[in-house]
Amino acid sequence: MEHREYLVRLGEKAKAAAQVLAQANTESKNTALLRLAAALRREGTRILNNNAEDVAEARARGLSGAFLKRLELDEKKINGMAQGLEEVAALPDPVGEIVSGWRRPNGLEIKQVRVPFGVIAVIYESRPNVTSDVAGLALKAGNAVILRGGSEALRTNRTLVELFTEALVAAGLPAAAVQLVTDPERRLVEELLQLRDYLDLVIPRGGAGLIQMVVEKARVPVIETGVGNCHVYVDEGADLEKAKKIVINAKVSNPAVCNAAETLLVHQAVAEQFLPDILAELHQLGVEIRGCEKTRALAPGSLAEAIRPATTEDWATEYLDLILAVRVVPDIAAAVDHINRYGTRHSEAIVTESYPRARYFTEAVDAAVVYVNASTRFTDGYEFGFGAEVGISTQKLHARGPMGLKELTTTKYIVLGTGQVR
Amino acid sequence: MEHREYLVRLGEKAKAAAQVLAQANTESKNTALLRLAAALRREGTRILNNNAEDVAEARARGLSGAFLKRLELDEKKINGMAQGLEEVAALPDPVGEIVSGWRRPNGLEIKQVRVPFGVIAVIYESRPNVTSDVAGLALKAGNAVILRGGSEALRTNRTLVELFTEALVAAGLPAAAVQLVTDPERRLVEELLQLRDYLDLVIPRGGAGLIQMVVEKARVPVIETGVGNCHVYVDEGADLEKAKKIVINAKVSNPAVCNAAETLLVHQAVAEQFLPDILAELHQLGVEIRGCEKTRALAPGSLAEAIRPATTEDWATEYLDLILAVRVVPDIAAAVDHINRYGTRHSEAIVTESYPRARYFTEAVDAAVVYVNASTRFTDGYEFGFGAEVGISTQKLHARGPMGLKELTTTKYIVLGTGQVR
Repeated sequence: MEHREYLVRLGEKAKAAAQVLAQANTESKNTALLRLAAALRREGTRILNNNAEDVAEARARGLSGAFLKRLELDEKKINGMAQGLEEVAALPDPVGEIVSGWRRPNGLEIKQVRVPFGVIAVIYESRPNVTSDVAGLALKAGNAVILRGGSEALRTNRTLVELFTEALVAAGLPAAAVQLVTDPERRLVEELLQLRDYLDLVIPRGGAGLIQMVVEKARVPVIETGVGNCHVYVDEGADLEKAKKIVINAKVSNPAVCNAAETLLVHQAVAEQFLPDILAELHQLGVEIRGCEKTRALAPGSLAEAIRPATTEDWATEYLDLILAVRVVPDIAAAVDHINRYGTRHSEAIVTESYPRARYFTEAVDAAVVYVNASTRFTDGYEFGFGAEVGISTQKLHARGPMGLKELTTTKYIVLGTGQVR
Repeated sequence: MEHREYLVRLGEKAKAAAQVLAQANTESKNTALLRLAAALRREGTRILNNNAEDVAEARARGLSGAFLKRLELDEKKINGMAQGLEEVAALPDPVGEIVSGWRRPNGLEIKQVRVPFGVIAVIYESRPNVTSDVAGLALKAGNAVILRGGSEALRTNRTLVELFTEALVAAGLPAAAVQLVTDPERRLVEELLQLRDYLDLVIPRGGAGLIQMVVEKARVPVIETGVGNCHVYVDEGADLEKAKKIVINAKVSNPAVCNAAETLLVHQAVAEQFLPDILAELHQLGVEIRGCEKTRALAPGSLAEAIRPATTEDWATEYLDLILAVRVVPDIAAAVDHINRYGTRHSEAIVTESYPRARYFTEAVDAAVVYVNASTRFTDGYEFGFGAEVGISTQKLHARGPMGLKELTTTKYIVLGTGQVR
């Protein structure tokens, strides 16, 4: 009950702030963003000191290396956060765009206008740069945010939000435009997800467990982000040099992220020529292979023994690690079936020189982003040119793929009449 | 468990149908729609006979007059359904529209293309015309639908879906594009809302109870429709003749629907001139008034006694009946505060001759549709020119206001490269 009251207070303040922000001019929003960017650069030492305390505590609690790496800031990361805010300030303001408009036979003028959502809650895990990315985008789109970062990053996030508050106030905007849930109690998140009177949207950003929990518990509209069981399909007659570069990039360049490839599908007509080479190279790069029978038969020499037979579970797994499942398929239709069956509708790529098959693949594969002759790793707000990103939506409602400013807005119809009745 | 298997079978068939529909050409979809329209006109007697059985049973079970009226079809209603389908056939196909597109510095071509959702479940109540409206729109947008109408309308809906199936097959489209849940068991709806592997979207269309239940139970993305606590605000200096016409239309023309007005707000400067007249007229039209103190003081003679004092509950109630709450406000800011506090973000109207106040109202009121000098009753897919409608979305995610074809689609990014890696 006490928790609910705490959250309701945050919610009320956010709602009041959102009403002011909805009508704030672009200049004040940009001023706040640029002031925060400057503050991040100026207060780097203070941020790093607080972050070091968070990291020390997490280490003492025995948290893993990968976790600590995500939690830990350095000058370069802080610089990246500042730069992201500057890029967001430079983007056009999405609020007020007339999305569509027409006049009805009875003389009513209908305009569909882009407006902020209102209050957005974002629930995320250990990476503190999400704090500035998400709050920056939300502010530019005219929204108030309630942030709930990982409790391990509390000191860092608190410092960042303090700096944000100062920047907001200096720009003449309400301090409550960006608020942090500082109570570390886990049950609080569940309570937060029930606040239908105060929240217009909840975005979970993190692992499958977090997203699952939010989908289960939320009574507020949710945009799911993230899980990516992505495929690269190498077609009959593909340019195998391109294919090799793309497969290696998609698997190896950053295996821990959602847009990395998890399964390689190879048309049987090029399997004999393509697989021995790519399997050897991947192996050398430290990638563990799980292969279908044909894949294992084509592996060169001793490598064949290192390849475990792939199971149905392998096809369905997002490894987020240096592991790749490999399957030889009889034709492109089998590749598309495999992807639509086991994929998570995130990012899927075909390597092909065939126009009709490129067209078939892009139409038949059901995913947020479908690539022809490019790595799945480009599914990313920065790579799409959005300045920053809130996450990758893998659902079909409202936003699909990388989410930037526009995805943090909704629309409103304004209808101008001269006394019309029905 | 048995129910789950039944639903999974429907889900599998719908998913397979959706894959075909996503690539169906516009002509086959239009052929199916026009064939169904013709069948509705041809088979009118058969539909009416089955509907008469549904109505007789509902009457025997003691269901109310308003309920029976919604359930009962007549030739005019069937004609309206056929005409709706013809209008949807005449609308442009939303699938394939390039919503946006650009080229990145690295040469990647990014296109955002409109595509169908996939499988949509619609849960609705007694009105059988929803069956053809919703299935028609869903088909044109390339989706498979699973329909769950009120169990009282089962014979009618079954007949309509049989005709739809024949039209689909004759047009060379999969029969499972439109499926009806015929098992009347109530628990089935809850099971349906869990089918994350098969459903891309659920739309509840009906009363507040149904929508609340769906929001509570659904693990599938939901678009909420419906609840409308709508206001008309009569501003200082308004054209009081216009105001009178609009208030009466918004309250009286169809009080049972979500876009009817439930509260009248009047600026104190015009209250004395406007209220005695409008209150008398509304009373004569059979409207019960619940008023604030000032309203009651301004009511002419004996009417004052008939006006009950309005409570906070009145401000928050969607009467859906010939009842109107009336409040005198000191200024436009108080009117906006009242609306943003008690409204359900559906449809809100100002009657004014002032440009700055029209602008302020349309910006400050948070609702799906904001009107200047027109009745709230225009919030409707037909009135907006959408041919038919799936419902009025009162949420901010994905769709807001009347939902037509576009709102039944999502987008997909197609990225064309020449071997790019990151």
